[in-house]
Amino acid sequence: MPMLPPEVRSLLEEMRAERIRGASWLARKGAEAYIVLSELLEGKELENALMEMRREIPAVNRTMASLYNLTRFIPITGDPDRVRTRAEEFIRLGEEAKREIGNIGSELIDENEVVITHSFSSAVLEIFKAAKKKGKRFRVILTESAPDYEGIALARELESLGIPFEVITDAQLGLFAGNATLALVGADSVTRDGAVVNKAGTYLLALACHEGGVPLYVAAESFKLHLELTSEEIEIVERPYARQGYRVRNFLFDVTPWRYVRGVITELGILVPPKEI
Amino acid sequence: MPMLPPEVRSLLEEMRAERIRGASWLARKGAEAYIVLSELLEGKELENALMEMRREIPAVNRTMASLYNLTRFIPITGDPDRVRTRAEEFIRLGEEAKREIGNIGSELIDENEVVITHSFSSAVLEIFKAAKKKGKRFRVILTESAPDYEGIALARELESLGIPFEVITDAQLGLFAGNATLALVGADSVTRDGAVVNKAGTYLLALACHEGGVPLYVAAESFKLHLELTSEEIEIVERPYARQGYRVRNFLFDVTPWRYVRGVITELGILVPPKEI
Repeated sequence: MPMLPPEVRSLLEEMRAERIRGASWLARKGAEAYIVLSELLEGKELENALMEMRREIPAVNRTMASLYNLTRFIPITGDPDRVRTRAEEFIRLGEEAKREIGNIGSELIDENEVVITHSFSSAVLEIFKAAKKKGKRFRVILTESAPDYEGIALARELESLGIPFEVITDAQLGLFAGNATLALVGADSVTRDGAVVNKAGTYLLALACHEGGVPLYVAAESFKLHLELTSEEIEIVERPYARQGYRVRNFLFDVTPWRYVRGVITELGILVPPKEI
Repeated sequence: MPMLPPEVRSLLEEMRAERIRGASWLARKGAEAYIVLSELLEGKELENALMEMRREIPAVNRTMASLYNLTRFIPITGDPDRVRTRAEEFIRLGEEAKREIGNIGSELIDENEVVITHSFSSAVLEIFKAAKKKGKRFRVILTESAPDYEGIALARELESLGIPFEVITDAQLGLFAGNATLALVGADSVTRDGAVVNKAGTYLLALACHEGGVPLYVAAESFKLHLELTSEEIEIVERPYARQGYRVRNFLFDVTPWRYVRGVITELGILVPPKEI
């Protein structure tokens, strides 16, 4: 029975335990696990381990297309150099994708734009950075994103970039969507049928934006597009959470149908819904 | 310059400081302030104090129709007995209204109903109690309602009543609305044009229910109907709140338009939107 080396197991454990950072971080961490593996094993042992990685990496989080796509990007081979080269290429392509998403997405931000977002997306942050670099003045409305408060991490980043922002509670998304002129969110996955899987609450933001006539765009590297999964097959991960002794349900994601998404900003350009969806 | 007695001032202070309980509790507390006043003053002094109460009581929270209606219910008079009698009548009518809302509302709960709610409404709780008393089996999905977690207070009530429930984070309202067959919320006010002012997040629940075909009803005593205020004139109270050193906006209410409300359950029957709204 094949066994992954403890160094790789502990990286997988770290990925499973991560609460704040999203799909891009996880994908990168997964690629690093492949690099570690290429330093430890070769030949038949490496091949067996790579086969196990094809099961283990997507199992970290089944809704994350990035993990699935990563395992398909790395060949099953006994040659450690090929594994390392592909894993490094995956990381490099991801970094380039994020920069390009920043470039493309920042063109959507006009002077005095008020951008509303939910949770923390590194791709959305990249858009804010690029827009700031282009000298655009805009402000951001963001949710604290209970119960892990990754919104506060975003607030910290915006503060250090000198971008004005306002933090709101999640329940005020409906109240503040009308104050925004543009909505930008990340994605953990985009399914074959165009559904956007992202932090729970994104669907509520999408509904409120639709109601208020605010265009909502999703920023997602192309490796977040899941070409096999449909919206019916999504299994949403739940993490334990309690408040004052009561168990509180804590599904991490919700699913926003294509019809509420104006476009998906990828490194290849902005995807818009095909007519048949 | 007229001055309210310190006993009454401290009751007003208590009303302003209250974070968990809603419009019904506030209205009752306001009526109690009138009773205290009737025990302390009479004649011209009482009249002056009553005039001050007409300004001070609604100022506790301008979106609360109950406070406005209470001050209109109490006559400006120098006769302490008339003040006490009317204040006691207001309290009694409020209690009767809540019981009747329980009766009427519980008829909406069918066997195996799954009811979703947001925040803590004593009128909604009354409906749950009445339905339970009628022997109906149903379950409740409720939000924790950050940042004051009044949902946990509701969970405690449901637990003691033996009604099964599930607590969710506010951001999961979109995810869970589709699991419900009925939505019930309270109201702090219903405006002339039928807008429902209730805890921030209610509007998001209404949008998600509309999307999922789940009928949403509002439970509100008739003293919560504001016959003068329109939805444009609503001023939403904000309370200070911070998270990890960052100021977080904390408007208490949002506004749900008539078109997302199937009906308002009052003690007089269920109000449905007139055609022109």
